[in-house]
Amino acid sequence: MSSSLPETLTLLQFGSVTNLMSLAIATLGAAAIFLFTAPGVGPKQRPAMTVSGLVCAIATYHYFRIYNSWESAYALDISAGLYHITGIPFNGFYRYADWIITVPLLMIELIAVLTLPAAKSRPLFIKLALAAFLMIGLGYPGEVSTSPAVIWSFFVLSMLPFLFILYVLFVELGASLATQPAGARGLIKTARIFTLVLWSFYPIAFVVGKSSVGNAGAEVFLQAGYTFADIGAKAGFGLLIYFIARAHSPFELENQSNKLAAH
Amino acid sequence: MSSSLPETLTLLQFGSVTNLMSLAIATLGAAAIFLFTAPGVGPKQRPAMTVSGLVCAIATYHYFRIYNSWESAYALDISAGLYHITGIPFNGFYRYADWIITVPLLMIELIAVLTLPAAKSRPLFIKLALAAFLMIGLGYPGEVSTSPAVIWSFFVLSMLPFLFILYVLFVELGASLATQPAGARGLIKTARIFTLVLWSFYPIAFVVGKSSVGNAGAEVFLQAGYTFADIGAKAGFGLLIYFIARAHSPFELENQSNKLAAH
Repeated sequence: MSSSLPETLTLLQFGSVTNLMSLAIATLGAAAIFLFTAPGVGPKQRPAMTVSGLVCAIATYHYFRIYNSWESAYALDISAGLYHITGIPFNGFYRYADWIITVPLLMIELIAVLTLPAAKSRPLFIKLALAAFLMIGLGYPGEVSTSPAVIWSFFVLSMLPFLFILYVLFVELGASLATQPAGARGLIKTARIFTLVLWSFYPIAFVVGKSSVGNAGAEVFLQAGYTFADIGAKAGFGLLIYFIARAHSPFELENQSNKLAAH
Repeated sequence: MSSSLPETLTLLQFGSVTNLMSLAIATLGAAAIFLFTAPGVGPKQRPAMTVSGLVCAIATYHYFRIYNSWESAYALDISAGLYHITGIPFNGFYRYADWIITVPLLMIELIAVLTLPAAKSRPLFIKLALAAFLMIGLGYPGEVSTSPAVIWSFFVLSMLPFLFILYVLFVELGASLATQPAGARGLIKTARIFTLVLWSFYPIAFVVGKSSVGNAGAEVFLQAGYTFADIGAKAGFGLLIYFIARAHSPFELENQSNKLAAH
Protein backbone atom coordinates (compact mmCIF):
# COMPACT_ATOMS: atom_id res chain seq x y z
CA MET A 1 0.00 0.00 0.00
CA SER A 2 1.55 3.26 -1.09
CA SER A 3 1.24 5.64 1.85
CA SER A 4 3.25 8.15 -0.15
CA LEU A 5 0.42 9.73 -2.14
CA PRO A 6 0.55 13.51 -2.75
CA GLU A 7 -1.41 15.58 -0.20
CA THR A 8 -3.53 17.40 -2.80
CA LEU A 9 -4.51 16.96 -6.44
CA THR A 10 -6.24 19.41 -8.76
CA LEU A 11 -9.63 18.45 -10.23
CA LEU A 12 -7.92 17.81 -13.55
CA GLN A 13 -5.21 15.59 -11.99
CA PHE A 14 -7.63 13.53 -9.91
CA GLY A 15 -10.17 13.36 -12.75
CA SER A 16 -7.62 12.29 -15.38
CA VAL A 17 -6.61 9.25 -13.31
CA THR A 18 -10.23 8.39 -12.43
CA ASN A 19 -11.35 8.73 -16.05
CA LEU A 20 -8.50 6.63 -17.40
CA MET A 21 -9.30 3.90 -14.82
CA SER A 22 -12.94 3.96 -15.95
CA LEU A 23 -11.85 3.77 -19.58
CA ALA A 24 -9.81 0.68 -18.61
CA ILE A 25 -12.93 -0.97 -17.13
CA ALA A 26 -14.92 -0.26 -20.32
CA THR A 27 -12.27 -1.36 -22.83
CA LEU A 28 -11.02 -4.40 -20.89
CA GLY A 29 -14.56 -5.56 -20.18
CA ALA A 30 -15.56 -5.20 -23.83
CA ALA A 31 -12.35 -6.95 -24.94
CA ALA A 32 -13.08 -9.87 -22.56
CA ILE A 33 -16.55 -10.40 -24.07
CA PHE A 34 -15.18 -10.09 -27.62
CA LEU A 35 -12.33 -12.52 -27.01
CA PHE A 36 -14.58 -15.14 -25.37
CA THR A 37 -16.82 -14.92 -28.45
CA ALA A 38 -13.95 -14.58 -30.99
CA PRO A 39 -16.04 -14.86 -34.19
CA GLY A 40 -14.40 -16.76 -37.05
CA VAL A 41 -11.72 -18.50 -34.94
CA GLY A 42 -11.28 -22.25 -35.44
CA PRO A 43 -11.15 -24.83 -32.61
CA LYS A 44 -7.34 -25.12 -32.54
CA GLN A 45 -6.96 -21.40 -31.74
CA ARG A 46 -9.81 -21.33 -29.19
CA PRO A 47 -7.56 -21.96 -26.14
CA ALA A 48 -5.51 -18.84 -26.93
CA MET A 49 -8.75 -16.84 -27.21
CA THR A 50 -10.04 -18.14 -23.88
CA VAL A 51 -6.78 -17.22 -22.15
CA SER A 52 -6.84 -13.73 -23.75
CA GLY A 53 -10.42 -13.29 -22.59
CA LEU A 54 -9.50 -14.36 -19.05
CA VAL A 55 -6.66 -11.84 -18.91
CA CYS A 56 -9.08 -9.03 -19.80
CA ALA A 57 -11.81 -10.31 -17.45
CA ILE A 58 -9.39 -10.49 -14.50
CA ALA A 59 -8.11 -6.99 -15.28
CA THR A 60 -11.69 -5.64 -15.51
CA TYR A 61 -12.37 -6.94 -12.01
CA HIS A 62 -9.18 -5.39 -10.65
CA TYR A 63 -9.89 -2.02 -12.27
CA PHE A 64 -13.20 -1.85 -10.41
CA ARG A 65 -11.21 -2.32 -7.18
CA ILE A 66 -8.46 0.10 -8.26
CA TYR A 67 -11.07 2.75 -9.26
CA ASN A 68 -12.87 2.43 -5.90
CA SER A 69 -9.62 2.48 -3.92
CA TRP A 70 -8.48 5.62 -5.77
CA GLU A 71 -11.87 7.30 -5.15
CA SER A 72 -11.66 6.63 -1.41
CA ALA A 73 -8.04 7.82 -1.12
CA TYR A 74 -9.11 11.40 -1.93
CA ALA A 75 -12.02 13.66 -1.02
CA LEU A 76 -13.13 16.82 -2.81
CA ASP A 77 -12.71 20.08 -0.88
CA ILE A 78 -15.45 21.95 -2.71
CA SER A 79 -14.61 25.43 -1.43
CA ALA A 80 -10.90 25.07 -2.33
CA GLY A 81 -11.63 23.24 -5.59
CA LEU A 82 -9.00 20.65 -4.71
CA TYR A 83 -8.83 16.96 -3.83
CA HIS A 84 -7.28 16.25 -0.41
CA ILE A 85 -5.85 12.93 0.73
CA THR A 86 -8.26 11.19 3.13
CA GLY A 87 -5.69 9.00 4.84
CA ILE A 88 -7.28 5.81 3.53
CA PRO A 89 -4.33 4.23 1.71
CA PHE A 90 -4.58 3.59 -2.03
CA ASN A 91 -4.23 -0.17 -2.36
CA GLY A 92 -1.39 -0.75 -4.82
CA PHE A 93 -1.66 -4.50 -4.27
CA TYR A 94 -4.62 -4.74 -6.69
CA ARG A 95 -2.32 -3.88 -9.59
CA TYR A 96 0.26 -6.51 -8.58
CA ALA A 97 -2.41 -9.14 -7.85
CA ASP A 98 -3.66 -8.49 -11.38
CA TRP A 99 -0.23 -8.61 -12.96
CA ILE A 100 1.00 -11.73 -11.18
CA ILE A 101 -1.96 -13.64 -12.66
CA THR A 102 -2.32 -11.95 -16.04
CA VAL A 103 1.27 -11.37 -17.16
CA PRO A 104 2.19 -15.10 -17.19
CA LEU A 105 -1.17 -15.68 -18.97
CA LEU A 106 -0.25 -13.07 -21.59
CA MET A 107 2.90 -15.05 -22.38
CA ILE A 108 0.85 -18.25 -22.53
CA GLU A 109 -1.69 -16.72 -24.95
CA LEU A 110 1.11 -15.58 -27.26
CA ILE A 111 2.66 -19.06 -27.42
CA ALA A 112 -0.72 -20.84 -27.52
CA VAL A 113 -1.90 -18.94 -30.59
CA LEU A 114 1.14 -20.19 -32.55
CA THR A 115 -0.06 -23.82 -32.11
CA LEU A 116 3.51 -25.13 -32.20
CA PRO A 117 4.19 -28.84 -31.56
CA ALA A 118 4.09 -29.59 -27.80
CA ALA A 119 7.83 -30.34 -27.70
CA LYS A 120 8.53 -26.79 -28.84
CA SER A 121 5.76 -24.94 -27.05
CA ARG A 122 6.11 -26.50 -23.58
CA PRO A 123 9.62 -25.17 -22.76
CA LEU A 124 8.57 -21.75 -24.10
CA PHE A 125 5.44 -21.76 -21.90
CA ILE A 126 7.45 -22.63 -18.79
CA LYS A 127 10.32 -20.22 -19.39
CA LEU A 128 8.12 -17.23 -20.28
CA ALA A 129 5.45 -17.75 -17.62
CA LEU A 130 8.09 -18.25 -14.90
CA ALA A 131 10.06 -15.19 -15.97
CA ALA A 132 6.84 -13.11 -16.03
CA PHE A 133 5.97 -14.34 -12.54
CA LEU A 134 9.44 -13.43 -11.24
CA MET A 135 9.33 -10.01 -12.92
CA ILE A 136 6.10 -9.04 -11.11
CA GLY A 137 7.05 -10.66 -7.80
CA LEU A 138 10.38 -8.81 -7.70
CA GLY A 139 8.69 -5.54 -8.67
CA TYR A 140 6.29 -5.49 -5.72
CA PRO A 141 8.75 -4.76 -2.83
CA GLY A 142 9.99 -1.76 -4.86
CA GLU A 143 6.45 -0.51 -5.41
CA VAL A 144 5.38 -0.50 -1.76
CA SER A 145 8.65 0.52 -0.10
CA THR A 146 9.52 4.10 0.79
CA SER A 147 13.27 3.40 1.07
CA PRO A 148 15.12 4.38 -2.14
CA ALA A 149 17.61 1.51 -1.61
CA VAL A 150 14.77 -1.05 -1.63
CA ILE A 151 12.89 0.69 -4.46
CA TRP A 152 15.83 0.75 -6.86
CA SER A 153 17.45 -2.59 -6.06
CA PHE A 154 14.15 -4.43 -6.61
CA PHE A 155 13.59 -2.37 -9.75
CA VAL A 156 16.90 -3.66 -11.15
CA LEU A 157 16.15 -7.25 -10.05
CA SER A 158 12.73 -7.07 -11.72
CA MET A 159 14.25 -5.85 -14.99
CA LEU A 160 16.38 -9.01 -15.33
CA PRO A 161 13.45 -11.40 -16.05
CA PHE A 162 12.03 -8.69 -18.38
CA LEU A 163 15.24 -8.73 -20.43
CA PHE A 164 15.17 -12.53 -20.44
CA ILE A 165 11.58 -12.45 -21.80
CA LEU A 166 12.67 -10.11 -24.60
CA TYR A 167 15.60 -12.44 -25.38
CA VAL A 168 13.25 -15.44 -25.66
CA LEU A 169 10.74 -13.53 -27.82
CA PHE A 170 13.25 -11.97 -30.19
CA VAL A 171 15.92 -14.70 -30.42
CA GLU A 172 14.45 -18.12 -29.52
CA LEU A 173 10.99 -17.48 -30.99
CA GLY A 174 12.52 -16.26 -34.26
CA ALA A 175 13.38 -19.87 -35.14
CA SER A 176 9.70 -20.86 -34.99
CA LEU A 177 8.50 -18.08 -37.29
CA ALA A 178 9.25 -20.02 -40.47
CA THR A 179 6.67 -22.69 -39.54
CA GLN A 180 3.89 -20.08 -39.24
CA PRO A 181 1.31 -19.35 -41.98
CA ALA A 182 2.32 -16.41 -44.19
CA GLY A 183 -0.62 -14.31 -42.93
CA ALA A 184 0.44 -14.78 -39.30
CA ARG A 185 4.18 -14.06 -39.56
CA GLY A 186 3.90 -10.27 -39.80
CA LEU A 187 1.36 -10.22 -36.97
CA ILE A 188 3.64 -12.24 -34.68
CA LYS A 189 6.48 -9.81 -35.33
CA THR A 190 4.05 -6.99 -34.49
CA ALA A 191 3.09 -8.80 -31.26
CA ARG A 192 6.77 -8.90 -30.19
CA ILE A 193 7.28 -5.19 -30.90
CA PHE A 194 3.97 -4.50 -29.12
CA THR A 195 5.26 -6.39 -26.05
CA LEU A 196 8.57 -4.52 -26.10
CA VAL A 197 6.98 -1.06 -26.44
CA LEU A 198 3.95 -1.49 -24.15
CA TRP A 199 5.80 -3.35 -21.41
CA SER A 200 8.41 -0.59 -21.41
CA PHE A 201 5.67 1.79 -20.25
CA TYR A 202 5.61 0.06 -16.86
CA PRO A 203 9.26 0.62 -15.87
CA ILE A 204 9.11 4.16 -17.32
CA ALA A 205 5.99 4.97 -15.25
CA PHE A 206 7.69 3.39 -12.22
CA VAL A 207 10.91 5.40 -12.63
CA VAL A 208 9.03 8.72 -13.10
CA GLY A 209 6.66 8.01 -10.19
CA LYS A 210 9.30 6.81 -7.72
CA SER A 211 11.85 9.51 -8.60
CA SER A 212 9.72 12.14 -6.87
CA VAL A 213 7.47 10.36 -4.39
CA GLY A 214 4.63 12.58 -3.10
CA ASN A 215 4.74 14.85 -6.17
CA ALA A 216 1.28 15.20 -7.74
CA GLY A 217 2.45 15.22 -11.36
CA ALA A 218 4.67 12.17 -10.83
CA GLU A 219 1.85 10.21 -9.15
CA VAL A 220 -0.58 11.07 -11.98
CA PHE A 221 2.04 9.98 -14.52
CA LEU A 222 2.57 6.68 -12.63
CA GLN A 223 -1.16 5.86 -12.37
CA ALA A 224 -1.97 7.03 -15.90
CA GLY A 225 1.06 5.21 -17.33
CA TYR A 226 0.18 1.90 -15.65
CA THR A 227 -3.46 2.20 -16.72
CA PHE A 228 -2.70 3.15 -20.30
CA ALA A 229 -0.16 0.30 -20.55
CA ASP A 230 -2.69 -2.18 -19.12
CA ILE A 231 -5.29 -1.20 -21.74
CA GLY A 232 -2.75 -1.68 -24.53
CA ALA A 233 -0.96 -4.76 -23.20
CA LYS A 234 -4.20 -6.64 -22.44
CA ALA A 235 -7.08 -5.40 -24.63
CA GLY A 236 -4.89 -4.21 -27.54
CA PHE A 237 -2.63 -7.28 -27.35
CA GLY A 238 -5.69 -9.56 -27.13
CA LEU A 239 -7.04 -8.06 -30.34
CA LEU A 240 -3.68 -8.70 -32.02
CA ILE A 241 -3.73 -12.32 -30.80
CA TYR A 242 -7.27 -12.55 -32.23
CA PHE A 243 -6.03 -11.47 -35.66
CA ILE A 244 -3.17 -14.02 -35.45
CA ALA A 245 -5.77 -16.69 -34.57
CA ARG A 246 -7.91 -15.60 -37.54
CA ALA A 247 -4.87 -15.87 -39.83
CA HIS A 248 -4.48 -19.49 -38.62
CA SER A 249 -8.16 -20.38 -39.01
CA PRO A 250 -9.13 -22.99 -41.63
CA PHE A 251 -11.16 -20.39 -43.58
CA GLU A 252 -8.23 -17.98 -43.97
CA LEU A 253 -5.73 -20.74 -44.78
CA GLU A 254 -8.08 -21.94 -47.53
CA ASN A 255 -8.25 -18.39 -48.92
CA GLN A 256 -4.47 -18.21 -49.01
CA SER A 257 -3.95 -21.57 -50.70
CA ASN A 258 -6.59 -20.60 -53.29
CA LYS A 259 -4.61 -17.45 -54.00
CA LEU A 260 -1.38 -19.45 -54.30
CA ALA A 261 -3.08 -21.98 -56.63
CA ALA A 262 -4.36 -19.15 -58.81
CA HIS A 263 -0.79 -17.91 -59.43
CA MET B 1 -16.24 18.17 -16.11
CA SER B 2 -19.04 20.65 -16.59
CA SER B 3 -18.83 23.06 -13.68
CA SER B 4 -21.57 25.07 -15.33
CA LEU B 5 -24.58 23.15 -14.03
CA PRO B 6 -27.68 25.12 -13.00
CA GLU B 7 -27.82 25.96 -9.26
CA THR B 8 -31.25 24.41 -8.71
CA LEU B 9 -33.54 21.95 -10.47
CA THR B 10 -37.18 21.17 -9.77
CA LEU B 11 -38.10 17.62 -8.77
CA LEU B 12 -39.55 17.12 -12.23
CA GLN B 13 -36.41 18.40 -13.98
CA PHE B 14 -33.97 16.36 -11.88
CA GLY B 15 -36.22 13.28 -11.99
CA SER B 16 -36.73 13.42 -15.76
CA VAL B 17 -32.98 13.24 -16.40
CA THR B 18 -32.44 10.54 -13.74
CA ASN B 19 -35.32 8.46 -15.06
CA LEU B 20 -34.22 8.70 -18.68
CA MET B 21 -30.69 7.64 -17.66
CA SER B 22 -32.14 4.63 -15.85
CA LEU B 23 -34.23 3.79 -18.92
CA ALA B 24 -30.99 3.86 -20.92
CA ILE B 25 -29.39 1.31 -18.57
CA ALA B 26 -32.40 -1.02 -18.93
CA THR B 27 -32.78 -0.80 -22.72
CA LEU B 28 -29.07 -0.83 -23.58
CA GLY B 29 -28.41 -3.74 -21.21
CA ALA B 30 -31.28 -5.74 -22.68
CA ALA B 31 -30.17 -4.90 -26.23
CA ALA B 32 -26.63 -6.09 -25.44
CA ILE B 33 -27.89 -9.50 -24.28
CA PHE B 34 -30.24 -9.81 -27.26
CA LEU B 35 -27.54 -8.89 -29.80
CA PHE B 36 -24.97 -11.29 -28.29
CA THR B 37 -27.54 -14.06 -28.65
CA ALA B 38 -28.93 -12.88 -32.03
CA PRO B 39 -31.21 -15.85 -32.75
CA GLY B 40 -31.47 -16.92 -36.38
CA VAL B 41 -28.33 -15.13 -37.56
CA GLY B 42 -25.83 -17.14 -39.64
CA PRO B 43 -22.07 -17.33 -38.97
CA LYS B 44 -21.10 -14.71 -41.60
CA GLN B 45 -23.20 -12.04 -39.87
CA ARG B 46 -22.09 -12.99 -36.33
CA PRO B 47 -19.20 -10.49 -36.15
CA ALA B 48 -21.61 -7.59 -36.83
CA MET B 49 -23.86 -8.87 -34.03
CA THR B 50 -20.92 -9.17 -31.62
CA VAL B 51 -19.85 -5.59 -32.34
CA SER B 52 -23.46 -4.33 -31.92
CA GLY B 53 -23.69 -6.16 -28.59
CA LEU B 54 -20.39 -4.65 -27.43
CA VAL B 55 -21.59 -1.13 -28.28
CA CYS B 56 -24.66 -1.64 -26.07
CA ALA B 57 -22.68 -3.32 -23.27
CA ILE B 58 -20.10 -0.49 -23.16
CA ALA B 59 -22.91 2.09 -23.12
CA THR B 60 -24.70 0.23 -20.31
CA TYR B 61 -21.55 0.44 -18.18
CA HIS B 62 -21.18 4.15 -18.89
CA TYR B 63 -24.82 4.88 -18.06
CA PHE B 64 -24.28 3.41 -14.60
CA ARG B 65 -21.41 5.88 -14.13
CA ILE B 66 -23.37 8.78 -15.69
CA TYR B 67 -26.38 8.03 -13.48
CA ASN B 68 -24.23 7.92 -10.32
CA SER B 69 -22.36 11.09 -11.26
CA TRP B 70 -25.65 12.94 -11.92
CA GLU B 71 -27.04 11.76 -8.56
CA SER B 72 -24.02 13.06 -6.67
CA ALA B 73 -24.03 16.44 -8.47
CA TYR B 74 -27.35 17.40 -6.79
CA ALA B 75 -28.89 17.00 -3.34
CA LEU B 76 -32.56 17.30 -2.45
CA ASP B 77 -33.53 20.21 -0.22
CA ILE B 78 -36.66 18.58 1.22
CA SER B 79 -38.14 21.69 2.86
CA ALA B 80 -37.78 23.76 -0.34
CA GLY B 81 -38.79 20.87 -2.59
CA LEU B 82 -35.82 21.61 -4.88
CA TYR B 83 -32.55 19.98 -5.92
CA HIS B 84 -29.48 22.08 -5.12
CA ILE B 85 -26.08 21.67 -6.73
CA THR B 86 -23.63 19.92 -4.34
CA GLY B 87 -20.42 21.22 -5.93
CA ILE B 88 -19.29 17.72 -6.89
CA PRO B 89 -18.78 18.13 -10.65
CA PHE B 90 -20.94 16.09 -13.03
CA ASN B 91 -18.40 14.04 -15.00
CA GLY B 92 -19.15 14.73 -18.66
CA PHE B 93 -16.14 12.62 -19.62
CA TYR B 94 -18.14 9.41 -19.23
CA ARG B 95 -20.29 10.35 -22.25
CA TYR B 96 -17.26 11.12 -24.39
CA ALA B 97 -15.35 8.03 -23.22
CA ASP B 98 -18.40 6.04 -24.29
CA TRP B 99 -18.77 7.77 -27.63
CA ILE B 100 -15.10 7.61 -28.58
CA ILE B 101 -15.24 3.80 -28.29
CA THR B 102 -18.79 3.10 -29.47
CA VAL B 103 -19.29 5.53 -32.36
CA PRO B 104 -16.44 4.05 -34.46
CA LEU B 105 -17.83 0.60 -33.54
CA LEU B 106 -21.31 1.63 -34.76
CA MET B 107 -19.81 2.43 -38.16
CA ILE B 108 -17.95 -0.89 -38.12
CA GLU B 109 -21.14 -2.85 -37.32
CA LEU B 110 -23.00 -1.15 -40.20
CA ILE B 111 -20.30 -2.11 -42.73
CA ALA B 112 -19.69 -5.57 -41.21
CA VAL B 113 -23.33 -6.60 -41.60
CA LEU B 114 -23.17 -5.95 -45.36
CA THR B 115 -20.46 -8.68 -45.71
CA LEU B 116 -18.92 -6.91 -48.70
CA PRO B 117 -15.67 -8.27 -50.21
CA ALA B 118 -12.63 -7.20 -48.12
CA ALA B 119 -11.35 -4.88 -50.88
CA LYS B 120 -14.59 -2.87 -50.65
CA SER B 121 -15.24 -3.06 -46.90
CA ARG B 122 -11.74 -2.26 -45.61
CA PRO B 123 -11.52 1.34 -46.96
CA LEU B 124 -15.08 1.98 -45.71
CA PHE B 125 -14.17 0.64 -42.24
CA ILE B 126 -11.11 2.87 -42.01
CA LYS B 127 -12.74 6.05 -43.36
CA LEU B 128 -15.89 5.80 -41.24
CA ALA B 129 -14.20 4.71 -37.99
CA LEU B 130 -11.55 7.43 -38.30
CA ALA B 131 -14.14 10.13 -39.07
CA ALA B 132 -16.26 8.99 -36.10
CA PHE B 133 -13.21 9.12 -33.82
CA LEU B 134 -12.36 12.65 -35.02
CA MET B 135 -15.97 13.81 -34.63
CA ILE B 136 -16.05 12.82 -30.93
CA GLY B 137 -12.47 13.92 -30.17
CA LEU B 138 -13.15 17.39 -31.62
CA GLY B 139 -16.46 17.64 -29.77
CA TYR B 140 -14.96 17.17 -26.28
CA PRO B 141 -13.11 20.53 -25.89
CA GLY B 142 -16.39 22.28 -26.78
CA GLU B 143 -18.32 20.24 -24.23
CA VAL B 144 -16.07 20.97 -21.25
CA SER B 145 -15.13 24.57 -22.02
CA THR B 146 -16.97 27.59 -20.62
CA SER B 147 -15.59 29.97 -23.28
CA PRO B 148 -18.10 30.55 -26.12
CA ALA B 149 -15.24 30.91 -28.63
CA VAL B 150 -13.92 27.42 -27.75
CA ILE B 151 -17.42 25.90 -27.55
CA TRP B 152 -18.51 27.04 -30.97
CA SER B 153 -15.27 26.64 -32.90
CA PHE B 154 -14.92 23.01 -31.75
CA PHE B 155 -18.60 22.48 -32.50
CA VAL B 156 -18.01 23.53 -36.13
CA LEU B 157 -14.81 21.42 -36.34
CA SER B 158 -16.67 18.39 -35.02
CA MET B 159 -19.46 18.81 -37.59
CA LEU B 160 -17.01 18.39 -40.50
CA PRO B 161 -16.32 14.66 -39.91
CA PHE B 162 -20.09 14.22 -39.32
CA LEU B 163 -20.84 15.63 -42.79
CA PHE B 164 -18.11 13.41 -44.25
CA ILE B 165 -19.73 10.34 -42.63
CA LEU B 166 -23.10 11.28 -44.17
CA TYR B 167 -21.39 11.72 -47.56
CA VAL B 168 -19.83 8.24 -47.35
CA LEU B 169 -23.11 6.64 -46.21
CA PHE B 170 -25.35 8.35 -48.78
CA VAL B 171 -23.04 8.59 -51.80
CA GLU B 172 -20.24 6.00 -51.61
CA LEU B 173 -22.30 3.26 -49.94
CA GLY B 174 -25.07 3.68 -52.53
CA ALA B 175 -22.92 1.91 -55.11
CA SER B 176 -22.77 -1.23 -52.92
CA LEU B 177 -26.53 -1.46 -52.43
CA ALA B 178 -27.09 -3.36 -55.68
CA THR B 179 -25.01 -6.31 -54.42
CA GLN B 180 -27.23 -6.68 -51.32
CA PRO B 181 -30.05 -9.25 -51.01
CA ALA B 182 -33.46 -7.73 -51.91
CA GLY B 183 -34.68 -8.12 -48.31
CA ALA B 184 -31.71 -6.13 -46.94
CA ARG B 185 -31.73 -3.17 -49.35
CA GLY B 186 -34.67 -1.32 -47.79
CA LEU B 187 -33.30 -1.92 -44.29
CA ILE B 188 -29.90 -0.50 -45.21
CA LYS B 189 -31.58 2.63 -46.57
CA THR B 190 -33.51 2.84 -43.28
CA ALA B 191 -30.23 2.47 -41.34
CA ARG B 192 -28.79 5.47 -43.19
CA ILE B 193 -31.85 7.65 -42.49
CA PHE B 194 -31.75 6.40 -38.89
CA THR B 195 -28.11 7.52 -38.58
CA LEU B 196 -28.90 10.92 -40.11
CA VAL B 197 -31.90 11.60 -37.86
CA LEU B 198 -30.63 10.14 -34.56
CA TRP B 199 -27.11 11.52 -34.84
CA SER B 200 -28.61 14.96 -35.50
CA PHE B 201 -30.08 14.87 -31.98
CA TYR B 202 -26.57 15.22 -30.53
CA PRO B 203 -25.64 18.57 -32.15
CA ILE B 204 -29.19 19.86 -31.54
CA ALA B 205 -28.96 18.96 -27.83
CA PHE B 206 -25.48 20.53 -27.74
CA VAL B 207 -26.64 23.80 -29.37
CA VAL B 208 -29.65 24.15 -27.07
CA GLY B 209 -27.64 23.25 -23.94
CA LYS B 210 -24.66 25.47 -24.69
CA SER B 211 -26.73 28.46 -25.86
CA SER B 212 -27.81 29.17 -22.30
CA VAL B 213 -25.27 27.58 -19.96
CA GLY B 214 -26.53 27.36 -16.36
CA ASN B 215 -30.20 27.45 -17.41
CA ALA B 216 -32.14 24.54 -15.91
CA GLY B 217 -34.34 23.91 -18.93
CA ALA B 218 -31.40 23.94 -21.33
CA GLU B 219 -29.39 21.51 -19.16
CA VAL B 220 -32.33 19.11 -18.91
CA PHE B 221 -32.79 19.31 -22.68
CA LEU B 222 -29.06 18.58 -23.20
CA GLN B 223 -28.97 15.58 -20.84
CA ALA B 224 -32.32 14.19 -22.01
CA GLY B 225 -31.39 14.72 -25.67
CA TYR B 226 -28.06 12.90 -25.36
CA THR B 227 -29.66 10.04 -23.43
CA PHE B 228 -32.60 9.64 -25.80
CA ALA B 229 -30.23 9.73 -28.81
CA ASP B 230 -27.97 7.11 -27.19
CA ILE B 231 -30.89 4.72 -26.68
CA GLY B 232 -31.92 5.09 -30.33
CA ALA B 233 -28.49 5.18 -31.93
CA LYS B 234 -27.23 2.11 -30.03
CA ALA B 235 -30.13 -0.16 -28.96
CA GLY B 236 -32.48 0.88 -31.80
CA PHE B 237 -29.76 0.85 -34.42
CA GLY B 238 -28.51 -2.51 -33.14
CA LEU B 239 -31.97 -3.97 -33.65
CA LEU B 240 -32.02 -2.63 -37.21
CA ILE B 241 -28.60 -4.21 -37.85
CA TYR B 242 -30.04 -7.46 -36.48
CA PHE B 243 -32.87 -7.38 -39.05
CA ILE B 244 -30.34 -6.70 -41.84
CA ALA B 245 -28.31 -9.70 -40.61
CA ARG B 246 -31.47 -11.82 -40.61
CA ALA B 247 -32.21 -10.75 -44.21
CA HIS B 248 -28.72 -12.03 -45.16
CA SER B 249 -29.07 -15.33 -43.31
CA PRO B 250 -29.19 -18.57 -45.37
CA PHE B 251 -32.71 -19.31 -44.09
CA GLU B 252 -34.15 -15.99 -45.32
CA LEU B 253 -32.33 -16.15 -48.67
CA GLU B 254 -33.82 -19.61 -49.23
CA ASN B 255 -37.29 -18.25 -48.44
CA GLN B 256 -36.86 -15.50 -50.99
CA SER B 257 -35.63 -17.75 -53.77
CA ASN B 258 -38.60 -20.08 -53.09
CA LYS B 259 -40.92 -17.10 -53.52
CA LEU B 260 -39.23 -16.15 -56.79
CA ALA B 261 -39.49 -19.76 -58.05
CA ALA B 262 -43.23 -19.80 -57.21
CA HIS B 263 -43.87 -16.81 -59.49
